[in-house]
Amino acid sequence: MRVSKLFTRTSKTAPADEVAKNAQLLIRAGYVYKVMAGVYAYTPLGLRVLEKIKQIVREEMNAVSGQELIMTNLQRKDTWEVTDRWSEDKVDVWFKTKLQDDTELGLAWSHEEAIMEMMQQYVKSYKDLPQVVYQFQTKLRNELRSKSGIMRGREFVMKDMYSLHASEADCDQYYDTVIEAYKRCYERFGIGDSTFVTFASGGSFTKFSHEFQTLCDAGEDVLYVNEDHSVAVNEEVLDEAANELGVDKASLKPVTSAEVGNIFKFGTEKSEKMKIFYTDNDGKQQPIYLASYGIGITRVMGVIVEKFADESGIVWPEAVAPYQVYLATIGDVAEQADVLYDELTSKGIEVLYDDRDARPGEKFADADLLGIPHRIVLSPKLVEQGSFEYKKRTESESNSLTKDELFATLSAAE
Amino acid sequence: MRVSKLFTRTSKTAPADEVAKNAQLLIRAGYVYKVMAGVYAYTPLGLRVLEKIKQIVREEMNAVSGQELIMTNLQRKDTWEVTDRWSEDKVDVWFKTKLQDDTELGLAWSHEEAIMEMMQQYVKSYKDLPQVVYQFQTKLRNELRSKSGIMRGREFVMKDMYSLHASEADCDQYYDTVIEAYKRCYERFGIGDSTFVTFASGGSFTKFSHEFQTLCDAGEDVLYVNEDHSVAVNEEVLDEAANELGVDKASLKPVTSAEVGNIFKFGTEKSEKMKIFYTDNDGKQQPIYLASYGIGITRVMGVIVEKFADESGIVWPEAVAPYQVYLATIGDVAEQADVLYDELTSKGIEVLYDDRDARPGEKFADADLLGIPHRIVLSPKLVEQGSFEYKKRTESESNSLTKDELFATLSAAE
Repeated sequence: MRVSKLFTRTSKTAPADEVAKNAQLLIRAGYVYKVMAGVYAYTPLGLRVLEKIKQIVREEMNAVSGQELIMTNLQRKDTWEVTDRWSEDKVDVWFKTKLQDDTELGLAWSHEEAIMEMMQQYVKSYKDLPQVVYQFQTKLRNELRSKSGIMRGREFVMKDMYSLHASEADCDQYYDTVIEAYKRCYERFGIGDSTFVTFASGGSFTKFSHEFQTLCDAGEDVLYVNEDHSVAVNEEVLDEAANELGVDKASLKPVTSAEVGNIFKFGTEKSEKMKIFYTDNDGKQQPIYLASYGIGITRVMGVIVEKFADESGIVWPEAVAPYQVYLATIGDVAEQADVLYDELTSKGIEVLYDDRDARPGEKFADADLLGIPHRIVLSPKLVEQGSFEYKKRTESESNSLTKDELFATLSAAE
Repeated sequence: MRVSKLFTRTSKTAPADEVAKNAQLLIRAGYVYKVMAGVYAYTPLGLRVLEKIKQIVREEMNAVSGQELIMTNLQRKDTWEVTDRWSEDKVDVWFKTKLQDDTELGLAWSHEEAIMEMMQQYVKSYKDLPQVVYQFQTKLRNELRSKSGIMRGREFVMKDMYSLHASEADCDQYYDTVIEAYKRCYERFGIGDSTFVTFASGGSFTKFSHEFQTLCDAGEDVLYVNEDHSVAVNEEVLDEAANELGVDKASLKPVTSAEVGNIFKFGTEKSEKMKIFYTDNDGKQQPIYLASYGIGITRVMGVIVEKFADESGIVWPEAVAPYQVYLATIGDVAEQADVLYDELTSKGIEVLYDDRDARPGEKFADADLLGIPHRIVLSPKLVEQGSFEYKKRTESESNSLTKDELFATLSAAE
């Protein structure tokens, strides 16, 4: 993609009302456009990042037998009345609307009840279980305040997955499989080292749920971790979890973190409330075991920005960067840069090609603000020498490389 | 994909309240799940069809310099007040909701104003034009009645594209380019032969807009076409268009059709109302020329079902079918069928593999209902003969083919 063709522009300032660093940087770099607090549109650059995160999650969910589908934003009142979650007293983030005949509708803040209601149509017998379904869905949540940028939006994209099982043992085993799939997701996003499976508060069925928490100064949570990071516990369940695990509370130290995933066993609680049963081997009606698994896609994008950004701008990990390479020209080297652009692109390397007639300082500042992992510069002098100036986003020094060295460096980075 | 792993089941009946043939068949085959009138979830099979349609449109829009982005469902009141389209008196399909502080919000029935408002941030000078942006977006429209299945939903997926230009000439030229891109889309969907660019009613700026109308008995429109199909006019502009084109009204015959696309020139109407200007070469403020281009993705899926379905079920054109091949076993030939499944899949052919222990009649009925273009059957007798029973969905007779003939047939169909 040529920078001259992008309609977005970088900017030195963010909207005055934007207090979150992630949104400030994403707006300044042209990844998102703010519609209102907690509601952001994603420009072509931003959509590329979202799609990369989604594709990693899709591959990992497919690998654990997840079947992708897409539910609806509009939901019926009775779907949520069965579990007593229609009222704002019970769920305080509902957005609601009405049909022209005054029938009340809900806008999806969650799909737990909606998915179960649908699955009931298809799952009748023990032979139909287990089943795993997931979606990438826009969720609307009427948050009272929304000051964390894309980390907690009123409109955001979530991957939510649901597994249905005939027995608790089967559910438990699958749940553990998903924990491993989630670890692979965070690893691939580039935040594996600093993301922990934590004990979090459960519900009426389970004592604990699990969260995936990433060390991040902008996070809203406090986590207690032991020295080798093998135990991590959310603050709100510190006492119970330390007790359960048999670890000394004093050995756990507090760190600031951001939730990047939440998984939860419902047991048969929801299916009993919703009267969703299957017929077992002996012809008897049995409630279905349910677990749910969420990853906030837009939230992950925000956490990555918060976590890695430096004073010059965003720093994308390789796998989620909108482009791998920022190719900038200095002076009249369009012909040579076009050749390099085509060559890189033909090798499947994604290049943002700064072909503008702009000062070098402006181009370098944009490359940094945008956070593209690799920067290549071409100038008349470099062309004459047959070399390429190369810099990693995470390093301050650039190197002069031959073409072979340049391609070797880029392919090693993949 | 193995049919035994699909959570959806085919059914002999559709919900009693479902009057549209497209939705009846899609529900019975397990492509969609009805949440309420005009609101349908898409199962894994249905999502595959949607994604195929979207990918065709994406490729064609990218080819005419479209940049994909994603706007938001939640919209601000003031965005639409500028053009006097907030009130239900002006737009009768609004769904509205409220923040907790009672701020009114709209749910996106369109993104015309929202996109223009965003583009205003980036487009300042004639050097920034032209620009073309598009999205695949969930639109919510509060239709009074919703009886056409997925052809006219209250919640549906639309590709909407917007082009911004410095001059009318540039806009006109680009508009014609999109007409050709649209023709390629319908061609690739498999409905090119029966889809016409028609004259439709315009607005205050243009006398006519253009629609793409597909001949279809379930369509809601009446079209007047001449004998060689070179002229097509919507009923509501018959007199003006016949006059404008200099054709004899009597030479145009009425046919029933369904709208599958709508493109529209706004001229400078919207940018003047919204005060969206660019600075021209002489430093003067000028209004931006705008055109918009829509394709209802879910609607196209519904029209395809209506148009091609026969008494046995859905008939998907090759390019939008969820799978190309339905592979059914009769009797104990799992080993040989597994080998064929792997071989087909490794060649990039998408196969729905009916590995169930079910009667041949049931498998054949499902293959037909699901509308998969090619059916292959394996039985002990066929295995012994080293042959494969092959049938096209659109033909009633099957043939016995050698493996080479089978693969040649399938690759010729691509």
